[in-house]
Parts: sequence; structure tokens; C-alpha cells
Amino acid sequence: MKPPWRGAHASRKGAVITGRTIVPSDLGVSKPPVQRLKGTERTVVKAMGNSTVISNPHERMSAYLADRLAKVDALIQQRMASEHAPRIQDVAAHLIGSGGKRLRPILTLASSAMFGYDGRHDIHLAATVEMIHTATLLHDDVVDESQQRRGKPTANLLWDNQSSVLVGDYLFSRAFELMVETGDLRILETLARTSAIIAEGEVLQLTATVNIETTEETYLKIVRGKTAALFSAATKVGAMVAGQQETVIEAMSTYGDALGIAFQIADDILDFRGTDATGKNVGDDFRERKLTLPMIRAIAAGGPQDRPFWDRVIAGHGKQTPGDLGQALDRMEQYKVLEATQQTAQKWAEQAKAALSIVEPHPMKSALVDLADYVVERLS
Amino acid sequence: MKPPWRGAHASRKGAVITGRTIVPSDLGVSKPPVQRLKGTERTVVKAMGNSTVISNPHERMSAYLADRLAKVDALIQQRMASEHAPRIQDVAAHLIGSGGKRLRPILTLASSAMFGYDGRHDIHLAATVEMIHTATLLHDDVVDESQQRRGKPTANLLWDNQSSVLVGDYLFSRAFELMVETGDLRILETLARTSAIIAEGEVLQLTATVNIETTEETYLKIVRGKTAALFSAATKVGAMVAGQQETVIEAMSTYGDALGIAFQIADDILDFRGTDATGKNVGDDFRERKLTLPMIRAIAAGGPQDRPFWDRVIAGHGKQTPGDLGQALDRMEQYKVLEATQQTAQKWAEQAKAALSIVEPHPMKSALVDLADYVVERLS
Repeated sequence: MKPPWRGAHASRKGAVITGRTIVPSDLGVSKPPVQRLKGTERTVVKAMGNSTVISNPHERMSAYLADRLAKVDALIQQRMASEHAPRIQDVAAHLIGSGGKRLRPILTLASSAMFGYDGRHDIHLAATVEMIHTATLLHDDVVDESQQRRGKPTANLLWDNQSSVLVGDYLFSRAFELMVETGDLRILETLARTSAIIAEGEVLQLTATVNIETTEETYLKIVRGKTAALFSAATKVGAMVAGQQETVIEAMSTYGDALGIAFQIADDILDFRGTDATGKNVGDDFRERKLTLPMIRAIAAGGPQDRPFWDRVIAGHGKQTPGDLGQALDRMEQYKVLEATQQTAQKWAEQAKAALSIVEPHPMKSALVDLADYVVERLS
Repeated sequence: MKPPWRGAHASRKGAVITGRTIVPSDLGVSKPPVQRLKGTERTVVKAMGNSTVISNPHERMSAYLADRLAKVDALIQQRMASEHAPRIQDVAAHLIGSGGKRLRPILTLASSAMFGYDGRHDIHLAATVEMIHTATLLHDDVVDESQQRRGKPTANLLWDNQSSVLVGDYLFSRAFELMVETGDLRILETLARTSAIIAEGEVLQLTATVNIETTEETYLKIVRGKTAALFSAATKVGAMVAGQQETVIEAMSTYGDALGIAFQIADDILDFRGTDATGKNVGDDFRERKLTLPMIRAIAAGGPQDRPFWDRVIAGHGKQTPGDLGQALDRMEQYKVLEATQQTAQKWAEQAKAALSIVEPHPMKSALVDLADYVVERLS
């Protein structure tokens, strides 16, 4: 299925560059080709063996919102400062400055801009959302004992777990301070609730790891918590601060939720496909015995026959051998799990787009529409 | 120095029970005698070699506020529940149910009761304060790699560090949700700011550990952050929710700040004296190379002569030998460090009491006055 906007952009923005076809041996072993046309707003993506050029909605939004994003950055810098404990600034700056996509603050700014908001609280809220996100990253890296994020050593590796836990707490508290300054109780309620849902999702994920009985339903709960909740809050508070009515606020909440789910499913597929940009290695989730949608489906499709394999490599606490990932990938290939999972991600993307149908035309509206497809089809 | 109220209480409430005199060999090696008159509101405390009976203001407050405290407990139970992630409830219940003193929620309830508040938001705020406290305990135990708290295994030991980090985040977020329900932006600002100060204090403590150049000034900053900030917020928001004017709010903030500092200094003394009630072993701070006031003063008093000892046992990363704690205690004895430090704690207690001078008489006022002495003189 090719959304109409994509062809239009492709023909308007540049020539189609043909990538090579993914062959099974690519999966999980070598990294698939990702070419970037640097300095333009176009990125070549290769999805599901088809190739195409799409304009990159993330970069379009970054450009459109550049002034406001600069203000968000300045505000974050200012609020991270700690007179008493310089390590806070060091740790936080390491993360904030490490080339994150700023996707969540962009969602807030795009949402409020789309509704014509011209105050300054969108800056506060975008900074709040990014700081909550950064705090959860710090804590996640402790929980996962991660060594790399976005291709750089994690804070828990550069400093220690202690610093990551406490600087995360600091960022989290400062985020709350910042949002209190908006003085909007409904927004405060939304963001406080969101933080609780995020933590709940992370705890659920913790207990679901190594459990090969994990269902798609549980997976969806985890994803809604750890990813979609903040996406949803980001777009929702953008509508709230712009004084939109309830139906619009709800639509923006639905958009963010569906976008976040699509984004996370795509991320979980990428973990088995590999990419240059995430700074993750192919099969990280597999090695951490983290049950994601591709794995849940491969386990279900394999039935009793494959069960001993999954029991050993995921549920078992024995060592995985170097060939295990390859075997898992072979099974995914055999049952066409990654393709089916990508279709699920696309379905969520369609839901996200459908939610925007009640919104009036605006450059940020079309960017948000495009973004839904982009998060699914990105291989970078 | 014997505050006038103490003699009065002693004569009114019961006979003086004479404890034995602390002799130098008691310090840090054996546990000093702590006798409790169970089922009464009196506790026998022995302080600085004098003995006396004081009524226990903590128990007086608990009794006076029993109905409201029960509501706080019920509210915390309710808000800890997680439909999706049962582990949250397990971990939180372990901590909440493990016999904490509920000192901080009592401070909030006592403060608002003293000003005649008869709404229901004091319950929300007391629960918020306790939940923030519990969240920081969970994270502290991860940071300190603690094995015991209040004589029970810590959550990070019973479950894992991951659960402690994430359940801490959940409690923290739920605390914020709860306070948002009060709808009072000044209170929200106070508590969000407080959370940031707590985290800042903890990070500062992290970087000050093993640094034998740590000054009394830095120590005070750390204590203000990790302990006094939440005490101060607890009493302050009690006045705020009761609609008091600015001077009263500030007085209650000063009271809590000074009380918290006195409390923490007393705690740091207890770490070298030992007690049944804290569930800590004598010399825990010493073994963790945590620079507290007694140690900072012993290092300063010892001068260049003792320096090699402190360099080895605190700054050095070599192993401490079993005799080192005894040697440190001998030095503290020689320079009368614990007595001087106790006097400092008492000075802060006096400041706390002085702050209450503008408050009208009330049973909870006299309890708060007594509490300032109690936190210093408690050996339990």
C-alpha cells in the first residue's frame, strides 16, 4: 500500500534511488544498506524490499519548528544546571547532546503550532516531555545494563549506575517543576498520569522478560506504557495548551498513542534487521531475552516443534550460543514474521492518520500524517 | 542544657528511670540501653550520659492524628495498586508496611491540624510526602547497595535493582498525580522543587563520598537536600493547605528545615553509637566511606598526624581492616567529636523550636516543639 502523498513527494523532491533487495542472509547478520543524502531533507529508506524516496517528515518538522526547538534546547540546558552538583549537568548534557531525534518535543510543538498556538507554554511542555523522556532513558539503561545508546557509551557506563538513577530523578523533578509553571491543572494531570503509566509499562516489561508465554496483548500493554504513553501525552498537551475542545484533544491523544505503538513495533523489527542509526546491535532484544512482537509471533507460529529452541534461548538461563540468533532469524524468515509485524505497524500508522481527519489543513498536519508512515518505513 | 518542658513532662508523666552511664567502651561496640515502656506513650531515652523520661511526641502525634493517618495509609494503598504490574504493589507494600515511622506525613498532618484545617487535602499531601519519601528510599538502597532497612532485607535484595528503580519511579509519579488533585499550584511548585533538591543532595553526596576534603558546609548542603528539604516541605505544605499567610508558611518551612538537619545529624551520630531501632549496623557510614559530620570533625581535629589513617580507610580504596572502626571511634572519643556534634544537632533543634514562636498554642504545636528535642535525643 503506497499512500498518495509519497509518490507526490518523491516526484517533487528528487529521483528514486534504487537500493538493493534484502536477501535472507542480510537478516540480522550484516547491516542493511542505509544511505543518507546529507544536508537535504530527503532520506533514502528501504522498506520491505521495495525502494523509494520519501521526504523526511521529521526533518521537515525540525526545520519548520527550528526557532521554537532552539528555545526548548535553551530551556532544557538552563533547567539542567545544578549549582551544587556539577555531575548532574555532565550526565544530562551527555544524553541531551548525544544526537537524539527530539521526536517527542517536536510532536508537542507541531501539535500546538497546528492549532495556531502563539503563547510560550508550548516551549515549557516540549522541554518537560523531553526531560521526562531523558530521565526514563537514564533509568532504562540502568535497568537493561546497557552499554551503548545512539552509538555512544551510556551514562551508567561512563559514570556509574548511581549517577544515572539520581540524575534521572533530578531531571524528572525538574520536568515537573517546569510543567507546573504552565499553571494548567489538566495538563499537569495528564503528564503526571503519563509518567506513572511509563513506569508501570517498564515494570511489566521487566516481569515479562524471559517469559515465553508473553502474549500479544501483554506486549501491547508494555508498548503503550513504555513508548506510546509519552507520544500520546506529547501530542495531547499540544492541543490542550492551544485551548482545543475535548474531541480534538482526544483525537490528538489517539494519534500519539497509535504513532507510538507503530514506532515501537518498527523499532522491535529493526532490532532484528539492524540499522546504523539506532546504535543498537542486531539481536539486542534477543540476547536480553526481551519478548517483542516478532519473537512472540515466531514462537506462536513455530508451535510445539520449535518450543524446545525458545525454551532454551529465551526462557532458559543457560548461555545462548553464537548461532542461536541466526536460527531465530531463520524461523522468523520461514514464518514471514517480520513482514506480518511490519503490516501490524502499518495498521497502527493508519489509525494514527485517521485520527487527524478532524483537523484542518496545516503544514504540520501533513507532516504528522507523513510521520506516521515514516516511523514504520524508516530503516534509519 | 535541659529544656523547661522536659522536667515538667517527666514529673507529670512518670518516674525517672535511671539508665546506666555511657562509658567510652560503649561507643560503637555494644549497643546502648534502650528501654521502651510498651503500650504507653512514654519512651525512656538516654542521652549524653544523662537519663530522663520524656513523653514521646512522635507517639503523641500518631495518637492525636490516628484517624487521619489511617486515611493516609488507605490512600497510599489505593494509589500503589497497579492492575497491570503486580510487582509494583509487592515492592511498595514491602516498604510501606515495614514499620516506618511515618514521620513526614505526620508533620504535614500536624501542621495543617495546628492551623485548624478541616478539609481533606491534608490527606493527599501527607500521602504525597510519604510516597516521595518511599520512592527516594527505594532509589537510595540501589545507590548505596544496601542490604537492610529497618532490620529487613531491602527491596533491591528481595527483588532486584531494576524493580527498585522502576517502582520508585512509579511511586514518584503517583505522588505527583496525587498532589495535582489538590489543585493548588503553589503547593505543586513547592513539592516539585523539593523533589529536585532531594535528587541534587543525593548526587552531591555521591560525589562527596570518599572525599576526605568534604567540608562541614558541603555536609550541610547534602543534609539539607537529602533530608531537610522534605521535612521542610512537609510542614510548609501543611500551612499552605490551611491557607496561612506568608510569614507563617515561611516559619513552618524554617521549622521543618531545622528539624530535618537536627534529625539527620542525630542519625549520623547514631551510626557510630548504634541502636536497636534503625536496623543499621554500627559504622555503616564508615564502611561506606560516607563523610558525615562526626567523621568530618574527627578528621579536622586529628590534623596531619591522623591524616594517613583517614587517607587509608576513607579516601583509599584499599580494604578496611576489622580494627579500623574501633580506631576511628577512639579518635572521635579523644576529640570529643560525638558530644560536640550532638550539641550542633541541639542547636538546630533550638532553631526549629524558635521558628514556632509565632504560632498560637495548640496540642500539635507543643508536640512539634517536643519533637525537635526528641529527634536529637532519641536513641531509638
